[in-house]
Amino acid sequence: MHRLYHLPLSPACRKVRLALAEKKIEVELIEERPWERRLDFLRLNPAGRVPVLITDKGQTLAGANAITEFLEETVPEPPLLPKDPFQRAETRRLVDWFDDKFNREVTENLLYERVTKRLARQGYPDGACLKAGSQNIRVHLDYVTYLLEGHNWLAGPKMTLADIAAAAHLSCLDYLGDVPWEEYPAVRDYYAVMKSRPFFRSLLADHLPGFPRPPAHYADLDF
Amino acid sequence: MHRLYHLPLSPACRKVRLALAEKKIEVELIEERPWERRLDFLRLNPAGRVPVLITDKGQTLAGANAITEFLEETVPEPPLLPKDPFQRAETRRLVDWFDDKFNREVTENLLYERVTKRLARQGYPDGACLKAGSQNIRVHLDYVTYLLEGHNWLAGPKMTLADIAAAAHLSCLDYLGDVPWEEYPAVRDYYAVMKSRPFFRSLLADHLPGFPRPPAHYADLDF
Repeated sequence: MHRLYHLPLSPACRKVRLALAEKKIEVELIEERPWERRLDFLRLNPAGRVPVLITDKGQTLAGANAITEFLEETVPEPPLLPKDPFQRAETRRLVDWFDDKFNREVTENLLYERVTKRLARQGYPDGACLKAGSQNIRVHLDYVTYLLEGHNWLAGPKMTLADIAAAAHLSCLDYLGDVPWEEYPAVRDYYAVMKSRPFFRSLLADHLPGFPRPPAHYADLDF
Repeated sequence: MHRLYHLPLSPACRKVRLALAEKKIEVELIEERPWERRLDFLRLNPAGRVPVLITDKGQTLAGANAITEFLEETVPEPPLLPKDPFQRAETRRLVDWFDDKFNREVTENLLYERVTKRLARQGYPDGACLKAGSQNIRVHLDYVTYLLEGHNWLAGPKMTLADIAAAAHLSCLDYLGDVPWEEYPAVRDYYAVMKSRPFFRSLLADHLPGFPRPPAHYADLDF
């Protein structure tokens, strides 16, 4: 069986877990706290970051982008990228949107400040970051609303890696109660469909010891 | 002809220019200063960032990763990714190493502080960032030296996108005189081979008005 070194509330790790589950690939999860800089883990990934996937053939793959592209190339069904090269580029643009832009403007300001800093004992949340994250998420949810006007999924008529990347970030922030769903009904409905897919369930069962439980709607499929 | 909205000293844009040149695809370069937030440019890429490629068919592609993967899919020769999925994952891991880790730890500390801030009138360079960048680049050059021990190119026996990503960052920093080549002879020799390839020349002819000229060795193929 594949093994995945991961952190429960890491969007990069959740993206890989969702892609694995959608492709019906079983995986053993191993929690890794990268800030402890465990030597055996640094040997697997000198970048010192999760996710790292060890395949059942013993190959080591590091980084969410390398892993998801590998999965797409080796387990084509169901496809998580469209066939047409231009549509693939549009999907990858949106994946980068979440993993880079959304990550810097929203996720790092909220999740890093409130969760990682505490777990890694790196100090207290910075109020200015929390405020910026809370403002920025609204700009991004406006953009998601706009994207959903033309079709059911972010990059077109079918679910793709772009939706998986978006759901990975939104699910982490939702755990913290940081997504103002009531202001964005179209995004809420879209995310509810995503959440109701079978492959989403294992994520929603995660619990972070020492932190408040997620809001009641977090694992509720009809929120 | 394709058109590329770019900035001369942006590693992301240089990566795309190098990939285009290696695949012998002609392109018209259009300089875009993203911080001016020009409305027509934001319509092309709502993320407001370069590079953006407009193909000769009028398709708009945004982001270095989406563009380079598109080029690889539509113009397969010469290949910039290996054939084997595991080797492709290793190549993409190294591309991410430069575009994410090296970028955050080195390029942003040196290039953003010294060039972008001045061009965009966002203030003066932060000494702590410059110091961190100058320390961090040595750790990265150690790692590049280690990677080159086993083979001629970063990801194996052939040149790949990983080398192009590395060269894109190194060439920008070299323009500023920020690469301590004399301490890293193996990396210098490797970069000299890269620089001597025909597709590298147009990059080295770039000149940034208002900034000191690059060091004498910058465009010298036998440095």
